[in-house]
Amino acid sequence: MTVLPPKAAASSVTEMTEYVLPQHANIHGSVFGGQIMAWIDLAAAVCAQRHAGRLCVTASVDDLVFQRPVRVGQVVLVRASVTATFRSSMEIEVAVWGEDTLSGDRWPTVACHTTFVAVAEDGRPAPVPPLLLETEEDKAAHAAAERRRAARLAKR
Amino acid sequence: MTVLPPKAAASSVTEMTEYVLPQHANIHGSVFGGQIMAWIDLAAAVCAQRHAGRLCVTASVDDLVFQRPVRVGQVVLVRASVTATFRSSMEIEVAVWGEDTLSGDRWPTVACHTTFVAVAEDGRPAPVPPLLLETEEDKAAHAAAERRRAARLAKR
Amino acid sequence: MTVLPPKAAASSVTEMTEYVLPQHANIHGSVFGGQIMAWIDLAAAVCAQRHAGRLCVTASVDDLVFQRPVRVGQVVLVRASVTATFRSSMEIEVAVWGEDTLSGDRWPTVACHTTFVAVAEDGRPAPVPPLLLETEEDKAAHAAAERRRAARLAKR
Amino acid sequence: MTVLPPKAAASSVTEMTEYVLPQHANIHGSVFGGQIMAWIDLAAAVCAQRHAGRLCVTASVDDLVFQRPVRVGQVVLVRASVTATFRSSMEIEVAVWGEDTLSGDRWPTVACHTTFVAVAEDGRPAPVPPLLLETEEDKAAHAAAERRRAARLAKR
Amino acid sequence: MTVLPPKAAASSVTEMTEYVLPQHANIHGSVFGGQIMAWIDLAAAVCAQRHAGRLCVTASVDDLVFQRPVRVGQVVLVRASVTATFRSSMEIEVAVWGEDTLSGDRWPTVACHTTFVAVAEDGRPAPVPPLLLETEEDKAAHAAAERRRAARLAKR
Amino acid sequence: MTVLPPKAAASSVTEMTEYVLPQHANIHGSVFGGQIMAWIDLAAAVCAQRHAGRLCVTASVDDLVFQRPVRVGQVVLVRASVTATFRSSMEIEVAVWGEDTLSGDRWPTVACHTTFVAVAEDGRPAPVPPLLLETEEDKAAHAAAERRRAARLAKR
Repeated sequence: MTVLPPKAAASSVTEMTEYVLPQHANIHGSVFGGQIMAWIDLAAAVCAQRHAGRLCVTASVDDLVFQRPVRVGQVVLVRASVTATFRSSMEIEVAVWGEDTLSGDRWPTVACHTTFVAVAEDGRPAPVPPLLLETEEDKAAHAAAERRRAARLAKR
Repeated sequence: MTVLPPKAAASSVTEMTEYVLPQHANIHGSVFGGQIMAWIDLAAAVCAQRHAGRLCVTASVDDLVFQRPVRVGQVVLVRASVTATFRSSMEIEVAVWGEDTLSGDRWPTVACHTTFVAVAEDGRPAPVPPLLLETEEDKAAHAAAERRRAARLAKR
Repeated sequence: MTVLPPKAAASSVTEMTEYVLPQHANIHGSVFGGQIMAWIDLAAAVCAQRHAGRLCVTASVDDLVFQRPVRVGQVVLVRASVTATFRSSMEIEVAVWGEDTLSGDRWPTVACHTTFVAVAEDGRPAPVPPLLLETEEDKAAHAAAERRRAARLAKR
Repeated sequence: MTVLPPKAAASSVTEMTEYVLPQHANIHGSVFGGQIMAWIDLAAAVCAQRHAGRLCVTASVDDLVFQRPVRVGQVVLVRASVTATFRSSMEIEVAVWGEDTLSGDRWPTVACHTTFVAVAEDGRPAPVPPLLLETEEDKAAHAAAERRRAARLAKR
Repeated sequence: MTVLPPKAAASSVTEMTEYVLPQHANIHGSVFGGQIMAWIDLAAAVCAQRHAGRLCVTASVDDLVFQRPVRVGQVVLVRASVTATFRSSMEIEVAVWGEDTLSGDRWPTVACHTTFVAVAEDGRPAPVPPLLLETEEDKAAHAAAERRRAARLAKR
Repeated sequence: MTVLPPKAAASSVTEMTEYVLPQHANIHGSVFGGQIMAWIDLAAAVCAQRHAGRLCVTASVDDLVFQRPVRVGQVVLVRASVTATFRSSMEIEVAVWGEDTLSGDRWPTVACHTTFVAVAEDGRPAPVPPLLLETEEDKAAHAAAERRRAARLAKR
C-alpha cells in the first residue's frame, strides 16, 4: 500500500478530483456554477486549515469568470494553494479545470483568489504562521497578493 | 387560494427563502460559504431567465465579502434583480440576508454582482431584451453597471 | 444594495423559489411529489416560526391534490401564509405553482392547509400571538379555518 | 444466499426501512416532516407501479397527522399497500412508524391514503388490473376506499 | 391501519426498498456502485443494531462482485440478516436485487458478508447476545461464518 | 495561475480530498462506512477511465477492513492507482486516509483492490491498454495482482 509523503510546508497544494454526476448538473447537462463555487470553497477551506492549523472561515472570494463548462461524466479538478499570509488571514488561490477522462483533455474552467480568516476556540481571529518566502518568485507572488488585498480593502 | 400577481417587467425581483438544515452546515454549525454561493447562482439564473426568456449560463461573479454568518435553524434570504442588460448578457445583483425567525432579526450576509449570458438553442449567445430605464435612478444604476462591466473587461 | 422592507404583521407571506434540478426529478423528468411535499413543509415551517417567534413542528397536512407537473429546468414557487391562529397552533395555507421562466407561464400545482404547533424550550406547546383580523375578509377566512379545524378534530 | 419469495398478488406490501441520518434532520434533531412525506411518496409510487405494471404518478395525498417524532440514529419504517383500484387509479394506504433499534420500541408516526394514476407511454391515463377481493374483509376495505374516493371528488 | 408484527428473534431480516432516482445514477443511467455500497452499509447497520441493541460500527465488508446493473426508475431491494455472532461482533449477510416494477422482473445485483462491532457508551466494544441456533441449517450456517472469520483474521 | 502537469502514463494516481460535512456523518459524528465506499468507487472509476480512455463500470471490490474513523471537520484522502491490466479489465488499488487539518495527523482508514471493466459504445467489454511494467517492482506488483485475480475467479 502506498505511503503518503510528509506535508510540504510552503508550496503545499490541496487537490480535489470530483466525478460529475447527474446530481451536480443543470438542465444543460453541465455542472452548474454554484456547485463549482461550493467545491472552490471546500478546497480553499482545507488548504487554509492545513496552513493555519486552525479552523478557518471564508472571508471573501474575488471575481470568478467562468470559461468552458464541464459536463456530466467528465471530471472537475480543483487546486488550492496559499499565496500570501497576513496577521490572521490568508489568501488562497484556487484554479479549476475540466477533464475528459476518455480523451485526456483538460481545460481551465475558472480561477480566483479567496481569503480565509483563522479563528480561535473563542471565535475570535487568531494569528497564522507566515508563509516561507524562499525564492524571488515567492516574494513577487506575495507582493502581488498584498496589492490585491489593498485593492479589496479600498473597495469597502 | 392566493393568486400570483402578473410579472412586473423592469423591477422584477427573484426572491428565495431557504431554511438552513444540518445538511447545509459546516463544522461551526453555520451555512458554509459554498452553499451560499450555490444559492446566489440559482437565484441569479432564475432572475436572468425570467428577463431573457431564454436559458442563461453563469459568466462571472464579482467579489463576495462574507459578513455575519447564518446558523442551522435560521433562514437565508436571497434577492436577485437585473441591474443592466447588454447585447446578449445581463448583470444581476444578488443580496443575501440571514434571518432569525424567532427574534425577527435580519442582517446582511453577502452581496455581489453576477453576469449571465443568454443562449439560443444552438448554444450560441442570443440577444436579450433591453431593461426599461424609466427614472433617473434607473439610468444612474445602469451607468454604474456599465462602469463595472468596463472594469471587468479591462481586467482580463 | 436593496434594503428589505419591515416584516408586515398579519398579511405576511413566506415565498420560496426553487429552480428544479435533475436531483429533484423522477424518471418522468418532473419533480417528484415527495420533493414538493418537502418544500411545502419547509415554507410552512418558516412561515409559522415567523409568526410565533418560536420553534414550530408540523402537526398535520390536509389533502394534497396534484395538478400539472413541473419539469427539470422550470421553477417551483411556494407561498405560505398564516390563515388562523389557535392557542398554541396555527393553520398555514400553502400554494405551489410551476413556472416556465422562458415563456413566463405559471400554473397551479398543488395547494393545501397545514397546521404547526409552537414549542417552548422544554418541548411543550407554547402560546402563539393571535392573528390580527382587521377586515371582514380576514374574519371570514378565520371562520373558515375554524371549521376546517373542527372537521380535522372530528375525524380523529 | 437468501432467495426472494414470489410476488404475492393482492396482499402485496412495499416496505422501506430508512436509517435516519443528520442530513434528514431538522434543528430539533428529528426527521423533518417533509422528508417523511418524501418517503411516503416513494414507497407508494413503488407499490402502485408493482400493482399496475406501469409508470404511476401521484394524484393526491389525504390528511397527514404527525404523531411521535423519529430522531437521528433511529429508523423510519414505511409500509405501503394497495387498498382499492379504480379504472386508471389506485388508492395506496401508507403507514409510517418510528423504531429505536437499541430498545426495540416502535411507534406510529403518521398514516395516510394516497392515490396514484397509471400512465401509458403517450402520457395518458391507462387501465389498472383490479384488486383481487377474496375475503369479506377485502370487500369491506374496498367499500371504505370507495367512500373515501367519493368524499375526495365531492370536495373539488 | 396495518399493525407491525413482533420482532422475530433469530431469523430477523432488515429489508430496504429504494426507488432509483436520477440523483443515484452515473453517466450510464444506472445506480453507481458506491451508492449500492452505501445502501448495503445502512441496511447492515440497522440489522446489527436490532440484534445487538447497541450502536454498531462497520468493521469489514467482504468481496463485492457486481452483476446486472439497476437503472433509474427501477428499484433496489436490500436484505440484511445476522448469520453469526461472536463476542462483540456480528457477521451480517447482505443481498441486493434489482427489480423492474413494470415487468415484475427481479435479478441479483451483488451480495456480501459484512461484520459490525457493537460499542458501549464509552466507545469500547460491547458483548452481543448470541444468535439462537435451532436447526441443523442454522448450525451449518454459523460454522460457515466461523470459517469466513478465520480466513479474514488470517489475511491481516 | 498554476499549470497542470501532463498525465503520467504508468504511475498515474487519482487523488481525492473530501472535507467531511455533517451530511456525510452517522450518529457517532464520523463518516459512515457507506460514504467512504462511495468515494472509493468514484476515485477508482476516474482512475480506470483515465487509463482506459473509455467508460468503465465497477466489477468487484475486495475486502474492506475499516480502521480508525474520520470525524466531521476532518478530511478524507482517497488515492487510486492502476495496479494491473487484463484484457478488458483493470485492478485499481485504493487507499483511504483520515487527516486532521488542525494537527496535521494522518492515519489509514481503509484500503482495498477493486476491478473495473471498460465498455465500448455498444455496452460490450472493450480492450484496455496494457500497463507499462518498467521496473522489477512493477513486475512483482503485477504478478501479485494476477494472483489476486486468480483467487477471485476461483471463489465464484
